[in-house]
Amino acid sequence: MLEKPKKLTLVEQVADQLQTLIESGQWPIGTRIPPEPELSETLGVSRNTIREAVRAMVHAGLLQTKQGDGTYVCSSSVLGVVLQKRVRQSTLAETLEVRQALEREAARLAAKRRTDEDIDSLKLHLDACAAAEESGDMEAYSGADIRLHQAVVTAAHNELFSELYAHMTEALDHSVRSLSGLIPEIGLYRRSHAKMIDAIIRQDVEEAVEAVHEYISHSRNDLKRLEEQS
Amino acid sequence: MLEKPKKLTLVEQVADQLQTLIESGQWPIGTRIPPEPELSETLGVSRNTIREAVRAMVHAGLLQTKQGDGTYVCSSSVLGVVLQKRVRQSTLAETLEVRQALEREAARLAAKRRTDEDIDSLKLHLDACAAAEESGDMEAYSGADIRLHQAVVTAAHNELFSELYAHMTEALDHSVRSLSGLIPEIGLYRRSHAKMIDAIIRQDVEEAVEAVHEYISHSRNDLKRLEEQS
Repeated sequence: MLEKPKKLTLVEQVADQLQTLIESGQWPIGTRIPPEPELSETLGVSRNTIREAVRAMVHAGLLQTKQGDGTYVCSSSVLGVVLQKRVRQSTLAETLEVRQALEREAARLAAKRRTDEDIDSLKLHLDACAAAEESGDMEAYSGADIRLHQAVVTAAHNELFSELYAHMTEALDHSVRSLSGLIPEIGLYRRSHAKMIDAIIRQDVEEAVEAVHEYISHSRNDLKRLEEQS
Repeated sequence: MLEKPKKLTLVEQVADQLQTLIESGQWPIGTRIPPEPELSETLGVSRNTIREAVRAMVHAGLLQTKQGDGTYVCSSSVLGVVLQKRVRQSTLAETLEVRQALEREAARLAAKRRTDEDIDSLKLHLDACAAAEESGDMEAYSGADIRLHQAVVTAAHNELFSELYAHMTEALDHSVRSLSGLIPEIGLYRRSHAKMIDAIIRQDVEEAVEAVHEYISHSRNDLKRLEEQS
C-alpha cells in the first residue's frame, strides 16, 4: 500500500505510487481518491507535492478532476490511454488489419495452449453471443462478441498480447458497435466464431486460423459497404 | 508553432503543446528546451504553470531534467515510452510472439501494396544487412536487421501498424543485440530475409508469409538455446 517516499523527486515518487494504485486495480475506475490533506498526511509530503502529482496523473489520463467535487479514477492504465488515443486517430481499415494480425496469432497460440479452464470460458462466451444474437439486442451482442475475442486471446497465454489486445479492443468498442448495427447477416459471424472455438478446443491450428480469416473478411466486406454508404 | 493558450486548464494546454512539439519532431531527441522564463514569456503564462507542465512531460517520459544544466527531450513519443516500458517487463518469448503476429501481417500486406519506392528501399536494406554481415560487426548487423524489418512494415502502408511496430522494435533493440551475438549461423536469417524481400517484390503473398515463419522459427530456436545456456 502507500508508503512514505524516500529519495529526491517527491512529485515523481508520489505520482508513481498513485499510478501503481490505479493500475493494480486497488483504486478501480470510478473511485474518488482521498482529498489532498489526507494524502498529504498519509504520505508525509506537502499539499503542493500531492497537487502536482495528481496533475501529472490527470495529464496521463488516469485521473479526472471534477470542479467542486473531487478527483476520480477514469482509466486503469497509461498504456490503455495512450493506445486508445492512437487507435482513435486511425481508420477502421487500419485497425482491422492490426486486429487481424493479433487475432490470427492469438487463435493459433490458443489452439496450441488452451487449458480445460479456457475451454469452459470459450464455450460460455460463444453461448453468450448466441443468446445476445437471439435476443436481437445488438448492443449486448457487440459486448458478447468482444468478450469472446478476448477469451481467445486469454487462451493464448501471452500477457503482452492480452494487454495490447485489451486496450486495442477497448478503443475499438465504439466502432464495433456502430458497425454491428449494419451487419446484414450476423449468421456469417456466428458460423466463423463457432468454427474457431471448435478448432481451438480440438487443437486444430490450421482451422482456427482459417476461421479468423473468414470473419475478418466478413468485417472487411461490412466495412466496405459502410464506406460506400457514407 | 507555439501559441498562447486560450481556455481554462493552462497547465494542461501548455503540456499538450510541449508534447506536440516533441512528438512532431520539431524538438527532436537531445534538444535542450528553452528555459522557464523564456517559455513563460512566449506563452504568456506564469513560470509556475510552465514548471508544472514540464514536470508532467518529465513524468510522461518525454523530458529529462539535468540538475544545474537544463531540460532535454529524451523520447519522441508517449506511446513509445509506455510500450517500451511494457515490453521490457515481458519475456523474450512473449515479445517474439507479438513480433510474429505483426511481421507476418506486415509481410502479407507489403506483398500486396509495395510501391516502386518501397522496392528500392527494401533492396537497399537487404544489401545493408549483407554488408554488415560481411564486415563481421554484429552491432552494425543488428541495426541493419531492424531497419530491414521496419522497411517491410513501411511497405505495408498502415500508419497504426508502423507506429506500434516502431515502438516495439525500439524496445526490442537491446534484446535483439544480446541475442544476435549468439547466433551460430547467420546465413539462415540471410536466406529467409532474401526470400521474403524477393517474394514481396514479386507480390507473392504466400511465399512472403512463409519466409517470416522461417526466420521467426530460427529466432525461436536461438532463444531456446539462449535459455538453455543461462
